[in-house]
Amino acid sequence: MIDTHPSLVPKDPLFERNVFFISDGTAITAEVLGHAVLSQFPITITSYTLPFVTNQTRAEEIRDQINALYQQTRIRPLVFYSIISEEVRRIITCSEGFCQDIVQTLVAPLQQEIGLEPKPELHRTHGLSKKNLGQYDARIAAIDYALAHDDGISLRNLEHAHVIILGVSRCGKTPTSLYLAMQFGIQAANYPFTSDDMDNLQLPAALKPFQHKLFGLTISPERLAAIREERRENSRYASLHQCRIEIAEVEALFRKNKINYLNTTNYSVEEISTKIIDCMGLKRRMF
Amino acid sequence: MIDTHPSLVPKDPLFERNVFFISDGTAITAEVLGHAVLSQFPITITSYTLPFVTNQTRAEEIRDQINALYQQTRIRPLVFYSIISEEVRRIITCSEGFCQDIVQTLVAPLQQEIGLEPKPELHRTHGLSKKNLGQYDARIAAIDYALAHDDGISLRNLEHAHVIILGVSRCGKTPTSLYLAMQFGIQAANYPFTSDDMDNLQLPAALKPFQHKLFGLTISPERLAAIREERRENSRYASLHQCRIEIAEVEALFRKNKINYLNTTNYSVEEISTKIIDCMGLKRRMF
Repeated sequence: MIDTHPSLVPKDPLFERNVFFISDGTAITAEVLGHAVLSQFPITITSYTLPFVTNQTRAEEIRDQINALYQQTRIRPLVFYSIISEEVRRIITCSEGFCQDIVQTLVAPLQQEIGLEPKPELHRTHGLSKKNLGQYDARIAAIDYALAHDDGISLRNLEHAHVIILGVSRCGKTPTSLYLAMQFGIQAANYPFTSDDMDNLQLPAALKPFQHKLFGLTISPERLAAIREERRENSRYASLHQCRIEIAEVEALFRKNKINYLNTTNYSVEEISTKIIDCMGLKRRMF
Repeated sequence: MIDTHPSLVPKDPLFERNVFFISDGTAITAEVLGHAVLSQFPITITSYTLPFVTNQTRAEEIRDQINALYQQTRIRPLVFYSIISEEVRRIITCSEGFCQDIVQTLVAPLQQEIGLEPKPELHRTHGLSKKNLGQYDARIAAIDYALAHDDGISLRNLEHAHVIILGVSRCGKTPTSLYLAMQFGIQAANYPFTSDDMDNLQLPAALKPFQHKLFGLTISPERLAAIREERRENSRYASLHQCRIEIAEVEALFRKNKINYLNTTNYSVEEISTKIIDCMGLKRRMF
């Protein structure tokens, strides 16, 4: 029987694992998927991300690092990898780590279904090629657009916005606009309502022609006050009273103008962004 | 024998597949991994990304959509999914699609190695929880920092920068700084060299104390001219002559001051960012 009183539980090395994310590219895919997989287990990890592993010398260094950790702890490090070169791959898989190929595990069954030979290419994801250069430029243009239309800086060219995000200061407009641009190539403008707007809050005339592009963000007054407090301690701006007034006014405006809105309190920028895409029927491009 | 003259090759439906990315969360992991896997096959895809599939009604709609596509084309749609709820998952896997569970495929072997039961939780990746709220706030702070220190706007608080990116206008400084913040929570400032600096180019005195944080970006003059041409057609700024001068001067400055630098011409923002992290020994956090 296991005594679960924390102080009595011996520190079990099985609950603490060393994890390697190894790739011949950026290792972003290995990291993202590896974390998704590992988050299902009640373990604490120490992670080592090793991108651009394209030659045998580098692979041998990493193999030695994996083996040294194993010798030290007697627990096999977990290894999530994606490597095209067979020689490089073999060096990693011959280590003492518990190795999982994150991409090939899904490729093999798919090969059967598709009935075609896979042709692995370097830098296939998160890389730049002639094929995707135009798409890539569109993505950079979207980032430029988000910066030029951040925080109501410019209300010009709103006809080029795919979406216009509205909300009070510090409710998540800027990170969301940037994420929509960076991850999905979506041109997002954003417009802030400030405390000066709060007496008789109206939708600005400049936004009215774009009613169908408007999306509102709201947040709990408590979380908003905490975020604002980080910026301006003990200010009226950060007071719970002020946050309550602003949120109430803005939510009323969203409802009155039939603007879709989302409470961001418990959502990450990825969740907010994908919910906006979903709700507004935006094209979700992949880069 | 196959005649490869394009107009004579019958359009083979096997080379064109419908693909679904389905998740009870943002579906970002499904998309990223699915694209990595599919990029190994010489096929053209039409993709449908369906996030936040958390209830049976929604799953049934999607199942019907998959089945309808199959009825129409007689080719099984490919389905990459990640769904915690067994009921919801079963509806999807009972469709006519060729279904692959992107996370569980790796969880099963890992379970053996770790010797613990997996405890799947909703919103495990790209979500917000009490556990990661502090980390999340650090990420938003990094985005604020990047914006406040974009394009040399402010040379104050550079002691808080994890890295300071240098380069000429339009070589990739801003998207890289934002990506470093967004994806890795790294505080990146960036500083532009302008055409006015080019006679007798020097490292600004304000940057000298931070020599160890400096990282340079360069780019081929041809690509730079093409990018600038999009911004200001037929300008001196966009001329190949001007681009050549600026790049030559800036590269000389990097070499003279022993500043590590990278040619970004053939690299995506993900690749540039991860190479900077690697080269500067920055902490790569995951969100």
